[in-house]
Amino acid sequence: MAFGYKSGDILFLLPGIYMDYNATTPLEPEVIQAITEALEDAWGNPSSNYMAGAKAKAIINQSRESVARMVGGKAEDIIFTSGGTEANNLVLHTAVEYFRRNCKAQEQGDGQQSRSKGLPHIITSNVEHVSVNLVAEHLQKDGQADVTFVPVSKVTARVEVEDIIAAVRPNTCLISIMMANNETGIIMPIQEICQRVKALNKQREWLRILLHTDAAQTVGKIKVDACELGVDYLTIVGHKFYAPRIGALYVNGPGTRTPLFPMLFGGGQERNFRPGTENTPMIAGLGKAAELVTANLSEYESHMRSTRLYLEDRLKAVFRDKITFNSHYPGSDVLPNTCNMSIQGPRLQGWRVLSNCARLLASVGAACHSDNANRPSHILLSCGVPTEVAANAMRLSVGRGTTKSDVDEVVEDLRETVQLLEEMN
Amino acid sequence: MAFGYKSGDILFLLPGIYMDYNATTPLEPEVIQAITEALEDAWGNPSSNYMAGAKAKAIINQSRESVARMVGGKAEDIIFTSGGTEANNLVLHTAVEYFRRNCKAQEQGDGQQSRSKGLPHIITSNVEHVSVNLVAEHLQKDGQADVTFVPVSKVTARVEVEDIIAAVRPNTCLISIMMANNETGIIMPIQEICQRVKALNKQREWLRILLHTDAAQTVGKIKVDACELGVDYLTIVGHKFYAPRIGALYVNGPGTRTPLFPMLFGGGQERNFRPGTENTPMIAGLGKAAELVTANLSEYESHMRSTRLYLEDRLKAVFRDKITFNSHYPGSDVLPNTCNMSIQGPRLQGWRVLSNCARLLASVGAACHSDNANRPSHILLSCGVPTEVAANAMRLSVGRGTTKSDVDEVVEDLRETVQLLEEMN
Repeated sequence: MAFGYKSGDILFLLPGIYMDYNATTPLEPEVIQAITEALEDAWGNPSSNYMAGAKAKAIINQSRESVARMVGGKAEDIIFTSGGTEANNLVLHTAVEYFRRNCKAQEQGDGQQSRSKGLPHIITSNVEHVSVNLVAEHLQKDGQADVTFVPVSKVTARVEVEDIIAAVRPNTCLISIMMANNETGIIMPIQEICQRVKALNKQREWLRILLHTDAAQTVGKIKVDACELGVDYLTIVGHKFYAPRIGALYVNGPGTRTPLFPMLFGGGQERNFRPGTENTPMIAGLGKAAELVTANLSEYESHMRSTRLYLEDRLKAVFRDKITFNSHYPGSDVLPNTCNMSIQGPRLQGWRVLSNCARLLASVGAACHSDNANRPSHILLSCGVPTEVAANAMRLSVGRGTTKSDVDEVVEDLRETVQLLEEMN
Repeated sequence: MAFGYKSGDILFLLPGIYMDYNATTPLEPEVIQAITEALEDAWGNPSSNYMAGAKAKAIINQSRESVARMVGGKAEDIIFTSGGTEANNLVLHTAVEYFRRNCKAQEQGDGQQSRSKGLPHIITSNVEHVSVNLVAEHLQKDGQADVTFVPVSKVTARVEVEDIIAAVRPNTCLISIMMANNETGIIMPIQEICQRVKALNKQREWLRILLHTDAAQTVGKIKVDACELGVDYLTIVGHKFYAPRIGALYVNGPGTRTPLFPMLFGGGQERNFRPGTENTPMIAGLGKAAELVTANLSEYESHMRSTRLYLEDRLKAVFRDKITFNSHYPGSDVLPNTCNMSIQGPRLQGWRVLSNCARLLASVGAACHSDNANRPSHILLSCGVPTEVAANAMRLSVGRGTTKSDVDEVVEDLRETVQLLEEMN
């Protein structure tokens, strides 16, 4: 898909070709329409008793159904949030609070007020998104939690189930592992982790381990079924699947089967789990985008996969033994749309190649880290990619509308850019 | 302004007349346009280095300027949030953290690790919005803070400056008072409170008292100038001034002159004070709505005032000595658009009158409490309104587009409804 520059914005330049769908996606026209209609017609306060409020409420309920269906949950399992960052923060906050309340209940049961259970323990990986990683670091630094950052295997780029299980302690209250990595696209063994932990939970005396996966990068690309995975929490991020900039947290029975403790207090919206007047238009858009995913996932997936495979073939054909794929690991599955690769050469750092490309719009890694673009990605280094290869890495992520002709033009753009940079040596 | 029912939605009913602008407002057409344009053209990730990101970033920066200008601040003083609830929660969270860090620094200075300073103390009123009130209650219940809920005067319905000052303790770290009450429309003496507290702050040894006002109900209705008021924090809520469902927090020099501690951790957006990929379209809409307020405030204000005065005149003419205004207090100023009134009579409870009105769309109080609509408002009771009057209260809040003919029809609607209900006795 060509990025929509209006003529006149940039003179004498060919339009950019966007291959950064893991950073964000455009909105589907139906999604824009749903948002616009709600902006016009459903501006009433969903808590108001008259028709205007009821209309907004109905839209929100319908969206909740659609989002739930997309991830294999029930409507009551969906809590709308401002985005993935908030959803992830909410899970870690809940885990700490859950531990604290469990300790209190235990102490009261024992009649021993003073016996300290110590700190809650959280297990996560060393390749998580910053909205999990930095929360965990903050809790650790602040003395609120102990955290184990389980390193991914340098062979498979996956977090290995045995390593997770080995990290479990009596105080472990949460395991939070992303469903797929945003830079490498590598899919993590969430289902296996959940199965093993559920077996462990049956033997544990007082503290069930809660299971969370951040599905930001998988929703709309591969099948995401929270029940099949066996997670307690699953993070949904609208703008990664052609929906607007809000998100949701799937919780398997919030407040009943699974604890959920709010970070915010206010007007009681989202059953007090996430108060604040609901963002009706954005929720409408999220619901519409979820319907599209439910209806068309296999088509999206196969289109993205064949386009990405074609991209990799073309890159191999042009750059031959100079190219390394940082998204290929033995035995590991990868997102259908994600190609992370490096072209070898002393002046071919990812940021330099990309900033010299005439048309390709892509990134060296997570957009959130764009200020650090000149340093090799710590994610790739953690996956065993050598420093000099990681320094040259570029993440090309294709979308629903990326065509083979886009791929051809991008590969040609890269060829010319690399040639130019090599000649400057 | 007539509420936009499409023909066919409700057969045989005249269109509703919306007078609940304190609950929420429709969006201005220019605002919808700004949002729609951003949805279409500025979907790039604002953190991306290429043009698509830069375009989104530019829109966000422009909105930040516009929002800052509206409240007399600088662009760097504006932190975008998901809404007013989050902004208010963020201020109370910051106050507790600020106290904690100050204690730590003091202890380290003294070399006395064990000397406890006790709990942080927060002063607020007994008529705040739940997004302040319930946070304060939670902090208190959880043993994280002491809170004084200063009662408003039963004569003026305002929180009195002397009462605030009398509540100050050595551990007081925050005073949070709304700029105007959502139900009565009464405007609080924020400037005077700030002046007195600043004088106090000069004499205080170790803990400056931070000053916050929730300006949800004043922005777009009366002049709001954070510098003139003298506050450290000011809450801005989009959907109360014809903008979308996001908000912002004004902070007088966040992280430099005024402390601000994030509740969320993630990708570094909003200078780490509020991470999460920016909601570009909603921010664009907020900025456009702020421009409109800056350009047209005096016109909006005088239109709303004259419409509300006309409404009150008509109500007095029709209901004579049976009407009581719950928004009139000696010496107190009221929002230009807010009329809170009760019609006396045994079957004329606010909820009963409103649910029998054919056309008037209004509420008995804050939309957030709509589940408790059958109980008299605790806000009105706190303002000295007798229980039987409070039980009959209705809040009619007019908007930019409310016409005198709307008022005439609403008053006629009320007259017929009251007559009907009285005849049923």
